[in-house]
Amino acid sequence: MLRVGMLTSGGDCQALNAAMRGVAKSLYEQCSEVEIYGFEDGYRGLVREQYHVMKPGEFSGILNKGGTILGTSRMPFKRIHEPDEDGRDKVACMIETYKKLSLDCLVVLGGNGSHKTADLLSKKGLNILTMPKTIDNDLYGTDVSFGFQSAVDIAANTIDCIHSTAASHSRVFIVELMGHKTGWLTLYAGMAGGADILLIPEIPYDLEVVAEAIRKRTKAGKHFTIIAAAEGAISKEEAALSKSELKAKRKKENYPSAAYRIGAEILQKTGLEVRVTVPGHVQRGGQPCAYDRVLATRLGAKTAELILQKKYGYMTCVKENKIDIIPISEVAGKTKLVDMDSDIIRQAKFAGLSFGDEPCGI
Amino acid sequence: MLRVGMLTSGGDCQALNAAMRGVAKSLYEQCSEVEIYGFEDGYRGLVREQYHVMKPGEFSGILNKGGTILGTSRMPFKRIHEPDEDGRDKVACMIETYKKLSLDCLVVLGGNGSHKTADLLSKKGLNILTMPKTIDNDLYGTDVSFGFQSAVDIAANTIDCIHSTAASHSRVFIVELMGHKTGWLTLYAGMAGGADILLIPEIPYDLEVVAEAIRKRTKAGKHFTIIAAAEGAISKEEAALSKSELKAKRKKENYPSAAYRIGAEILQKTGLEVRVTVPGHVQRGGQPCAYDRVLATRLGAKTAELILQKKYGYMTCVKENKIDIIPISEVAGKTKLVDMDSDIIRQAKFAGLSFGDEPCGI
Amino acid sequence: MLRVGMLTSGGDCQALNAAMRGVAKSLYEQCSEVEIYGFEDGYRGLVREQYHVMKPGEFSGILNKGGTILGTSRMPFKRIHEPDEDGRDKVACMIETYKKLSLDCLVVLGGNGSHKTADLLSKKGLNILTMPKTIDNDLYGTDVSFGFQSAVDIAANTIDCIHSTAASHSRVFIVELMGHKTGWLTLYAGMAGGADILLIPEIPYDLEVVAEAIRKRTKAGKHFTIIAAAEGAISKEEAALSKSELKAKRKKENYPSAAYRIGAEILQKTGLEVRVTVPGHVQRGGQPCAYDRVLATRLGAKTAELILQKKYGYMTCVKENKIDIIPISEVAGKTKLVDMDSDIIRQAKFAGLSFGDEPCGI
Amino acid sequence: MLRVGMLTSGGDCQALNAAMRGVAKSLYEQCSEVEIYGFEDGYRGLVREQYHVMKPGEFSGILNKGGTILGTSRMPFKRIHEPDEDGRDKVACMIETYKKLSLDCLVVLGGNGSHKTADLLSKKGLNILTMPKTIDNDLYGTDVSFGFQSAVDIAANTIDCIHSTAASHSRVFIVELMGHKTGWLTLYAGMAGGADILLIPEIPYDLEVVAEAIRKRTKAGKHFTIIAAAEGAISKEEAALSKSELKAKRKKENYPSAAYRIGAEILQKTGLEVRVTVPGHVQRGGQPCAYDRVLATRLGAKTAELILQKKYGYMTCVKENKIDIIPISEVAGKTKLVDMDSDIIRQAKFAGLSFGDEPCGI
Repeated sequence: MLRVGMLTSGGDCQALNAAMRGVAKSLYEQCSEVEIYGFEDGYRGLVREQYHVMKPGEFSGILNKGGTILGTSRMPFKRIHEPDEDGRDKVACMIETYKKLSLDCLVVLGGNGSHKTADLLSKKGLNILTMPKTIDNDLYGTDVSFGFQSAVDIAANTIDCIHSTAASHSRVFIVELMGHKTGWLTLYAGMAGGADILLIPEIPYDLEVVAEAIRKRTKAGKHFTIIAAAEGAISKEEAALSKSELKAKRKKENYPSAAYRIGAEILQKTGLEVRVTVPGHVQRGGQPCAYDRVLATRLGAKTAELILQKKYGYMTCVKENKIDIIPISEVAGKTKLVDMDSDIIRQAKFAGLSFGDEPCGI
Repeated sequence: MLRVGMLTSGGDCQALNAAMRGVAKSLYEQCSEVEIYGFEDGYRGLVREQYHVMKPGEFSGILNKGGTILGTSRMPFKRIHEPDEDGRDKVACMIETYKKLSLDCLVVLGGNGSHKTADLLSKKGLNILTMPKTIDNDLYGTDVSFGFQSAVDIAANTIDCIHSTAASHSRVFIVELMGHKTGWLTLYAGMAGGADILLIPEIPYDLEVVAEAIRKRTKAGKHFTIIAAAEGAISKEEAALSKSELKAKRKKENYPSAAYRIGAEILQKTGLEVRVTVPGHVQRGGQPCAYDRVLATRLGAKTAELILQKKYGYMTCVKENKIDIIPISEVAGKTKLVDMDSDIIRQAKFAGLSFGDEPCGI
Repeated sequence: MLRVGMLTSGGDCQALNAAMRGVAKSLYEQCSEVEIYGFEDGYRGLVREQYHVMKPGEFSGILNKGGTILGTSRMPFKRIHEPDEDGRDKVACMIETYKKLSLDCLVVLGGNGSHKTADLLSKKGLNILTMPKTIDNDLYGTDVSFGFQSAVDIAANTIDCIHSTAASHSRVFIVELMGHKTGWLTLYAGMAGGADILLIPEIPYDLEVVAEAIRKRTKAGKHFTIIAAAEGAISKEEAALSKSELKAKRKKENYPSAAYRIGAEILQKTGLEVRVTVPGHVQRGGQPCAYDRVLATRLGAKTAELILQKKYGYMTCVKENKIDIIPISEVAGKTKLVDMDSDIIRQAKFAGLSFGDEPCGI
Repeated sequence: MLRVGMLTSGGDCQALNAAMRGVAKSLYEQCSEVEIYGFEDGYRGLVREQYHVMKPGEFSGILNKGGTILGTSRMPFKRIHEPDEDGRDKVACMIETYKKLSLDCLVVLGGNGSHKTADLLSKKGLNILTMPKTIDNDLYGTDVSFGFQSAVDIAANTIDCIHSTAASHSRVFIVELMGHKTGWLTLYAGMAGGADILLIPEIPYDLEVVAEAIRKRTKAGKHFTIIAAAEGAISKEEAALSKSELKAKRKKENYPSAAYRIGAEILQKTGLEVRVTVPGHVQRGGQPCAYDRVLATRLGAKTAELILQKKYGYMTCVKENKIDIIPISEVAGKTKLVDMDSDIIRQAKFAGLSFGDEPCGI
């Protein structure tokens, strides 16, 4: 009997269910005797021994279902080392649960934080396999994660809608997209939605350049400007601050989020009215897109293959358009940022998109 | 030769193009000689004599196109009576343009504000016909306006997405929907999206009741609560304030919008973390839904019929599921509010939805 | 203890789950002691005593889920009177199951066929309530049924897609939509999608008129024509045949469906290449639209209200935009057809749509 | 002054407009003097000298618009060498038009057929650049073409809808997807939609294996089976026939398309009722998805870059997830087939999908 544990960790996203279904369908297809143990609410279920043996039927009809049938929770890596509510060592509890159930391996679907814990458990001797889940697309070691393209679809559609309503007066619209540390989602959704200015954490903006880009559009007879701004969009001045100075500045200003701050800055600079759209959690909700469903299914099949080969300690990933694997230890603790010198940034600028860092146009 | 003017006024919405196409296709079909004069940016184009004679081809392919091909603008009724930039009387200018072009009539697509101006022009002797346009559904005299159902679709889909991502900890999500004075959009989208608590301007909420409804859900093992709140959601205490007191309170608090205020109130009351989604202008953007396209086309045909009958001074409308007409003078200056004692409110409460006004459940 | 049976019968459609949820949420909210018995696969579950007592949790998260969580089946009314596989009287079995479980009433969600059986059971003394379910919108006694608007959305979107790809040579596209006896879906989706010619069972077409309408478009410089045809579209010649003659003709021709037949006729008549799209069961699948979810929820609340009032023998319905009720006996055995002289047909023709019955245009 | 010709050729698809916009926005941004000549209806416009100098405004608002603003036409490569209606040599005419307008280069957006002509013109000395357009994804030299992912989305959504309606009796649903020679679309959409059996041209099916897979599902208590079949799906027996024998067989059978043939075969083999869905041209219509818009924009920027570098004779493409280029001569005349031994096929089979070629399951 093969015993496989499974959990989804961190912020939820689209295609978590599709990915689990991919693993399960493959295991049921390839292996006559298999039990899948589903832990509830991420690592917490592993700590607290909250799980159930999943029935094959649970994996039916979930390919296109948003969220995760197992539930998820965020348990920051730092707190992993703190005792739980009952004063017990969380890591020890997780290892104990794993051993008590005689698991052959544990499959973790998670993002950056979850991979640190997965790496820790792997180093403690558990057989761990992980799958790359995040709408932020900031996981090191994979070209793309599932959830990302679905979030891009939603965010681009949001910008589309703003477009069709923006054809009135000289107005500026800011659509704030998820991404505290990285701008992948804003970059792709902004390009797909035809935003004019993209503000992402990796490329601090110069407010004067942003204002100039808006004025340039007005001069060219275009009545509106659409700015896609990541949650972590930051000005050049702010980028020069220390972490604590920045924190103090943010606290003092007390804006609910980046778009409101940037909106106020633009109003002050240009006198133009600014409208704000904050789709928020919508971006990680709803059905996964076809791209993510195929990706998650393929990564699931690959993960199942590794299980049957008893090849542990890897994250399944995408490299150069192929399904591949990478040691969890190489992934954990890193963040994949948008490279300012990458092809896509160059192409976006070439096509006239402004990142607010340097004047565009002739 | 029949000469028909056309303009779209106020905030844009879905199906404006479908409605104009409905009028135009009918006129071209029924009448061998017709010229349609499209005024730019609403009444402003009429004031400034900015228009063009539209070609039949302009009405092709716009049935499902968001926004308005004529552009729109808000020109508050009060300012109608102020002179324009060149010191000229706006109303006189509009009448002059109308007469200069020897128009047989003017078709105005607009909401509440636009109908006041339409009524004024009608009373000044112009031949006016109007069509009911608003995502707010607050136009008096019609059961439903085009734009409304499309906005409901978008808003309900937003709540759907929140639903699939909300299955984590005890969290409260507030989705803020358009509607400063009326709660139609929040009511329908909230019911369609399965929100748990609906806060609308017509039914001031009691924060303690809202908090209790959240607690009740938590006790019932439900990990999250979704609140759909109209922009104009208001507490019972606030509803008791005078207009100026309320304005002062809002200014002092300085929240960017209702959802942030309510979120802060709930956090303070319950200690629960609140997440805010503000879809904003997305709700009036994008393609019109099928319902609105049929509605707009039918209203367009009816409007064309009135033109050919030389029957002026009416708004085309929906009454008891039929296309009908109502004098503009009966519509202008009124607002259609959600009736607290209406069937739909009763049914919603019966099915367990809370409006925050009175305890629900047994 | 209140005991309520529930079943979904006939072809499935969107919002069946939303409707059942509406009933259940209302009952749980209004009544401290209630048990809902869900019968599997429609009346079959009642005949065979296949059911389970539903848990409140089963009604969570299904508001926007397509299909029916209870399953459905078609059991033609005629066969109701035939013995079942075990030689037992089906009607007697149903009554026996009802009594054995001491049900207070049975809620049936169904279309035309299902209402005949519901009426029969009601006349046999069972407490029956029904809800109007059908994408065909052909149920007598209600202005609209849930499922209809969702199907219109899908069908209109199909026509939209054809539109954007049709801008090449002189080609004719036929989109075949559901509706063997009635053209409601084709009428609304055709208008919403901007089809040029609508062929529906209620208005037999003249092939020469259809061909002329296509030629007229070509002359006007329009490169393509989109025809929305109901499954039951029929020519004037065919409409003059007896039922058996028509059956023989259809059998001899051996076309897979109406669109292929009409396509062949048009090719022969005009020499123009015809492309066929048959979305099929797609029209009754997928998520219900917001309109249907609100409608189903309201009808559900109304049905629950009737249960609590012990008011049986009714179908909940929509009349003049209000939720209402009508005796099942008045509904059973009738079909609501599109009225050729109705406002909507008149408006559609006024706006230039052709129904293939009479020349349009000047 | 830089003079750039542009045309879209072959069957239309999503993101053609996005791709042209990408080229144009880049050229306008990078180059002070540029004129873009848009040829109507593909190569035909080049032959007949039908074109217009495009205004920058024409490229606004088309990022998410389906179809092509230039129109397209199929002009089979073989007929390129036949004289046109006026007896003139088409190739000579195209060269003449190109020279007459003093074009610096011609950008062709097309699929397999179009690349043969592009290669011919390139070899005749014209400066040609091409962009990979096809929903079939069968263009050699690029990992993916724009249009493909959008078509996958639509096709997967179609299967989704079938899924939610399929939960009744033991029925088989066949969804016929585009692809006469290749199964890319069926493969990806089938995986994304959760189809059970995928029939593609590259993997001839054994009807007995297909029937067995259906029976296996029935035994496992699954009430329905969904088959995604490419237009070019072919049985092992048929694959063994000569081209003319196959043609004769198809003609004799006289099925409107593959799904009807396979449906009849399955009915005969298993006695199970089969329902057919043929989305047809819907798959190449409607708005491009976000993925395709980003891809098309990037390819557009790359194409513009080549123009400014005077680097001609290339198709822009995607290789290992990067934008790259490949000589047109290497692309022309080839077809990219699904490789039976590829990773994705292996993963799909691993996860339990049947391709009808060999028994699956244990």
